[in-house]
Amino acid sequence: MTTENKPDVASDARTIRASVLHGAKDLRIEDRSLFPPGARDLQVAVRATGLCGSDLHYYRHYRNGDIICREPMSLGHESAGVVVDVGSDVKDFKVGDKVALEVGLPCEQCERCKEGRYNICKEMKFRSSAKAFPHAQGTLQDRINHPAAWCHKLPEEVSLDLGALLEPLGVAIQASKRAQLATGSTVLVFGAGAVGLLVAAMAKISGAGTVVIADIDEGRVKFAVDNKFADRSFTVPMKRGNTTEENLAIAQEIATEIGKTSKQSGQEIGQVDAVFECTGVPSCLQAAIYATRPGGQILLIGMGTPIQTLPISAAALREVDLKGVFRYANTYPTGIQVVSKKGPDYPDFSKLVTHRYKGLDAAEEAFEMAAKTKDDKGNLVIKVVLETGEDKASL
Amino acid sequence: MTTENKPDVASDARTIRASVLHGAKDLRIEDRSLFPPGARDLQVAVRATGLCGSDLHYYRHYRNGDIICREPMSLGHESAGVVVDVGSDVKDFKVGDKVALEVGLPCEQCERCKEGRYNICKEMKFRSSAKAFPHAQGTLQDRINHPAAWCHKLPEEVSLDLGALLEPLGVAIQASKRAQLATGSTVLVFGAGAVGLLVAAMAKISGAGTVVIADIDEGRVKFAVDNKFADRSFTVPMKRGNTTEENLAIAQEIATEIGKTSKQSGQEIGQVDAVFECTGVPSCLQAAIYATRPGGQILLIGMGTPIQTLPISAAALREVDLKGVFRYANTYPTGIQVVSKKGPDYPDFSKLVTHRYKGLDAAEEAFEMAAKTKDDKGNLVIKVVLETGEDKASL
Amino acid sequence: MTTENKPDVASDARTIRASVLHGAKDLRIEDRSLFPPGARDLQVAVRATGLCGSDLHYYRHYRNGDIICREPMSLGHESAGVVVDVGSDVKDFKVGDKVALEVGLPCEQCERCKEGRYNICKEMKFRSSAKAFPHAQGTLQDRINHPAAWCHKLPEEVSLDLGALLEPLGVAIQASKRAQLATGSTVLVFGAGAVGLLVAAMAKISGAGTVVIADIDEGRVKFAVDNKFADRSFTVPMKRGNTTEENLAIAQEIATEIGKTSKQSGQEIGQVDAVFECTGVPSCLQAAIYATRPGGQILLIGMGTPIQTLPISAAALREVDLKGVFRYANTYPTGIQVVSKKGPDYPDFSKLVTHRYKGLDAAEEAFEMAAKTKDDKGNLVIKVVLETGEDKASL
Amino acid sequence: MTTENKPDVASDARTIRASVLHGAKDLRIEDRSLFPPGARDLQVAVRATGLCGSDLHYYRHYRNGDIICREPMSLGHESAGVVVDVGSDVKDFKVGDKVALEVGLPCEQCERCKEGRYNICKEMKFRSSAKAFPHAQGTLQDRINHPAAWCHKLPEEVSLDLGALLEPLGVAIQASKRAQLATGSTVLVFGAGAVGLLVAAMAKISGAGTVVIADIDEGRVKFAVDNKFADRSFTVPMKRGNTTEENLAIAQEIATEIGKTSKQSGQEIGQVDAVFECTGVPSCLQAAIYATRPGGQILLIGMGTPIQTLPISAAALREVDLKGVFRYANTYPTGIQVVSKKGPDYPDFSKLVTHRYKGLDAAEEAFEMAAKTKDDKGNLVIKVVLETGEDKASL
Repeated sequence: MTTENKPDVASDARTIRASVLHGAKDLRIEDRSLFPPGARDLQVAVRATGLCGSDLHYYRHYRNGDIICREPMSLGHESAGVVVDVGSDVKDFKVGDKVALEVGLPCEQCERCKEGRYNICKEMKFRSSAKAFPHAQGTLQDRINHPAAWCHKLPEEVSLDLGALLEPLGVAIQASKRAQLATGSTVLVFGAGAVGLLVAAMAKISGAGTVVIADIDEGRVKFAVDNKFADRSFTVPMKRGNTTEENLAIAQEIATEIGKTSKQSGQEIGQVDAVFECTGVPSCLQAAIYATRPGGQILLIGMGTPIQTLPISAAALREVDLKGVFRYANTYPTGIQVVSKKGPDYPDFSKLVTHRYKGLDAAEEAFEMAAKTKDDKGNLVIKVVLETGEDKASL
Repeated sequence: MTTENKPDVASDARTIRASVLHGAKDLRIEDRSLFPPGARDLQVAVRATGLCGSDLHYYRHYRNGDIICREPMSLGHESAGVVVDVGSDVKDFKVGDKVALEVGLPCEQCERCKEGRYNICKEMKFRSSAKAFPHAQGTLQDRINHPAAWCHKLPEEVSLDLGALLEPLGVAIQASKRAQLATGSTVLVFGAGAVGLLVAAMAKISGAGTVVIADIDEGRVKFAVDNKFADRSFTVPMKRGNTTEENLAIAQEIATEIGKTSKQSGQEIGQVDAVFECTGVPSCLQAAIYATRPGGQILLIGMGTPIQTLPISAAALREVDLKGVFRYANTYPTGIQVVSKKGPDYPDFSKLVTHRYKGLDAAEEAFEMAAKTKDDKGNLVIKVVLETGEDKASL
Repeated sequence: MTTENKPDVASDARTIRASVLHGAKDLRIEDRSLFPPGARDLQVAVRATGLCGSDLHYYRHYRNGDIICREPMSLGHESAGVVVDVGSDVKDFKVGDKVALEVGLPCEQCERCKEGRYNICKEMKFRSSAKAFPHAQGTLQDRINHPAAWCHKLPEEVSLDLGALLEPLGVAIQASKRAQLATGSTVLVFGAGAVGLLVAAMAKISGAGTVVIADIDEGRVKFAVDNKFADRSFTVPMKRGNTTEENLAIAQEIATEIGKTSKQSGQEIGQVDAVFECTGVPSCLQAAIYATRPGGQILLIGMGTPIQTLPISAAALREVDLKGVFRYANTYPTGIQVVSKKGPDYPDFSKLVTHRYKGLDAAEEAFEMAAKTKDDKGNLVIKVVLETGEDKASL
Repeated sequence: MTTENKPDVASDARTIRASVLHGAKDLRIEDRSLFPPGARDLQVAVRATGLCGSDLHYYRHYRNGDIICREPMSLGHESAGVVVDVGSDVKDFKVGDKVALEVGLPCEQCERCKEGRYNICKEMKFRSSAKAFPHAQGTLQDRINHPAAWCHKLPEEVSLDLGALLEPLGVAIQASKRAQLATGSTVLVFGAGAVGLLVAAMAKISGAGTVVIADIDEGRVKFAVDNKFADRSFTVPMKRGNTTEENLAIAQEIATEIGKTSKQSGQEIGQVDAVFECTGVPSCLQAAIYATRPGGQILLIGMGTPIQTLPISAAALREVDLKGVFRYANTYPTGIQVVSKKGPDYPDFSKLVTHRYKGLDAAEEAFEMAAKTKDDKGNLVIKVVLETGEDKASL
């Protein structure tokens, strides 16, 4: 795909620096050789990389759930940068262009790819994931070569931080596309982390009538409403480790409370049309099932407990559908539109980046912050971005 | 369905006043007998009725296209009022409730009705339409009996004028539902009359990225943008009576110009994702076909020339779909949500009612105004509302 | 809705016989008064009623899961008969017409009803279900009055047994409509009871490329293939009562085996596009999740264990959707088309009725047979039909 | 994409023979150099090429409508063959495999490609079409190099003639996918040429209840019914050159007659659910609009008169949708399933190939036959196939 590992002429290579994970909490700065971009590639100086939950898992455990690292790997996949070299066959890009990177490279040959659902391609090579071997290296490097077809030009006024944010926003857009919400829908979002907030924002932008966001942390849901990501908030007693019976009881209580909250204009709205589950916590999915109206739907976004006990009849008998959401396909053009807009009632996406660190050497510090829910001053930690390569020299 | 014409006990009837059309421009105020509401009906004091293009056709010609009046008929079908009596089997309504009237009563037995597309029920009885016989009488009466199932309770803060507006808004919501726009879509609306403006607003509310509205009248498109119904405006040289060749040439020019206009954030958007055609003028539909991107769609909303010359291959070969929109089904709950909202960037629906007249006696004057595009002071005429029965006595 | 319980003039009533359940296994033949049909009703002499699993639950336990009988109730809801009287407002029906009965009467006023999903109407009154009170009485009676809008005229050549079968076929059609299978899909059906067989047949008729049916009973899956309900069969070690770990292990084995079975024409088909789960047994739903390809779907049809332990991440991470199927909406016209056809490769629906009993007095005997999987001669018990009222006298 | 025109090492090239069009009716056999397949390509010995209407237009006029040849071009794009060489990066194929060729190569980078609608990619390079320049050469050559990703392995039992037929079948599958027919639908197909017959067959296989096929030629519709492509036939007085008024009158007559024909099982079916228009003749599309039920749809498949006069209100006011169908995307796997099946009621696809010619030298003779509707013996001409390269020597 790219020529990173396919040197034709060794002397063409340049030396770059990369942050490389060698084991749990063992990040090292290393020199790597980078060859000129292949004919259809761009060479991009990485400028902003948001740290994601999966990166954090790798950082802390050298694995992510069942997926175990088998070789040193650079982390980072929520990224944007500046074009510094252009492959010979590439049109439409020039040196200096700001680009967001779509870091998953599907096979482009299987049925899923051909039908436009490349996010579930079995041969996907996704940067900073150890699923494929050799691992597709992440973006915590000075520069990378990446196919131009998977780079998205950013308008001048969109910052590189927002460009990096297009990756998790892609998940929210994917959820929104899968949901096909009717305009005016009542929506409930479980989880007010970065993805939950983006999901709530997308529901609102896509025409939901009321977006209620629920989280165990009152500060987070307040943040959501204050910054126009959601219309109403709800604090839920979500807890891991309850018994099934306890969870089901809590779930029903939550559903009832949500019902009470979801009133509007003197009319009782009743149960919600769609729940976007962004926590992966069983009691939330259970509550989601109880809270959804007949004929409604639940979007499964949060990755958490892989095997869960669910009141599945309560879904089936009311034709409440459960739809999976895995990464994204064809979301970047929409994402660029979405973050380009501004307005008094519009979600303020720039607020999501709560902490910034500069330079590859700050990676460890950045990951330690990303592991927290609040910083030492009590401020929420939502999205931590590592900004790199800003000095001219690095280009 | 209703007991208007099915008196069981004559002495129960009360006398009401109705505005009745007896011929072209022959509106008369008449007394009618109205019986108490049937078991499943509400009796509603009509308070606000918007005048629609079809009403205007009947007023001027005693016919609407092919549909000819066969008996005197009250006009009016964009209506809201106040409940003054409640049928014995009706739950959920009480005297004093504000309601919007959904004035089309489908058969509820045919396949279309049962599958939820009751708007295209062949047995539809629609108030102030002469299609069915006896004609379903319109709402320009002091009171009417109407099935509670087709009355929609309005929240306190929604005015009766806005309640009346829910009817044409229903057409816009129907168009929006049929379109299933992807969030971020570029949308073009032809026609900036009441329906075009509502359609543009619904596209915006439903998540369109850019809404361009086009009309022959510069004032109307300016109104659209000023009041947040659309993002951009375009003035087109639409004209009836051109030759096909002239029209096709104009259509291609329009498509090209629209393409130039539809730029955003330094990115060329190219052709539009969806066109909502609200004029019924052939050159507009022709331009719509040329302006739409491969795989896009055109919503046929405007009623106009019934037989048109169209560059149909230009649509078929690019899989541009043409979808009809006829009235609406299941749109009132959404409509109530939509008009209940307010915000600095939100379409200001109250601005659509440009002219108000009071009392059934003012009907003629109101229709004469509705026939104009501008009033004597040069102000736009968009929606004319006839307000009736406000004095306590009429209740 | 119907006038069964709303006598206007007592002397109009006639006496009919009904089979009435008074407690577990306590079926009694009783006389009831039946009034002439209401204006919009038909009076139907019931001729054929298939016995359903829910009827059987009521018969054995005077309850069905959580739903407990609160008054004596006639059973039976898979029914067809002959029109013996016609309400004054009814068109399109005459005495002597054969009709299939759609026995669920929705409210026709809620949002679900109006959008055509009346099967999930919360106010549904469904014959022989104790959910609503007073209970809607089932069809094991000589005659019933039923709204003409919910009676479906049968063509001459369709037998009343097949007419009764339209009810469970409705579930299969509902599943097929919810699935929107692509032509050529590979389909797996868990469970080869009456519903599973009908579901398999509908998948085949709707264009599935390969239909594999799986059941614990080898005889049933053989029946399915022999009678053209499915293309291939698979015998699975489904078992209630395993531990979760055991079930998950079995589920993965099943998925693997199904994968091996699903080869065709020398090409490996891989995993299945859609699973129709008709058992309600947890290990089957678990296997369904593992067996489905990325982007595929599972239809939840079987009612069984209400709270299940599921490998939900295995679904979510591959965008495998779980869709509920509850009864049916708008399926009878399609069903009549389906059972009207015949052909050498076409499912032979008449074979599903394996046992017939005559007269209301035989109800107990019929239920005892319906409780078995095989009769004394070792023949499969699939659908037991109680045929009633065939002598002219009963009309 | 392929290495046909990108020799790296001249000596690797081999000489092949090609049939090349140099002007109207000026076909010449020429020698060409063919290089070994590129890393991701297959080299395929072409064995069977069906002649399509567009090929015939090029053959007769050196142009196809607006598209004019700008350099000599081989014709042929409905093709299958045998793998004779395999590129170094190709998995899953070996020498000797039978393959069907999907001859359109999309850009794989634009939004349409990424969302799976590559058939409407603006940069499509389609063999034997003069739209792109240099023209993508057709398959009337001994061998071609073609990307493995666009070759589809055929099962042993599928003949190469049927493999070639997968191309026009793709159009029928595309139409079927766009239509999303409900099971049991009543379908009308205008035109009983090769595409019309395939479209009818796909409607039947996809679960249509009744397929009526209409053509001006009685022999063709009889062929359709005799060979199980359709259920009923209808002979229509289609004619080019009528006035609009004449056409509209004829169209309404046709719609009425079709209505009468479409009865089944004693029930009047009324108007049709979907019309597949495969002629491009205005009076057929007009009739299609009148014949379709409210809420139905028309698929625009036939390419004909580019600008047509249509009763567009008759479509719009009844929400009858017009959907374009252009070539196909993701249809080959389904097509292979479809032609692999056989049965007494199953369409006999092999019957479509009515005339076969052998060798590139017979191309002219083959085109002359393809231009006829009947051969000298009065037999229908449906699909003419040119079989090439069967002697071992040519491999």
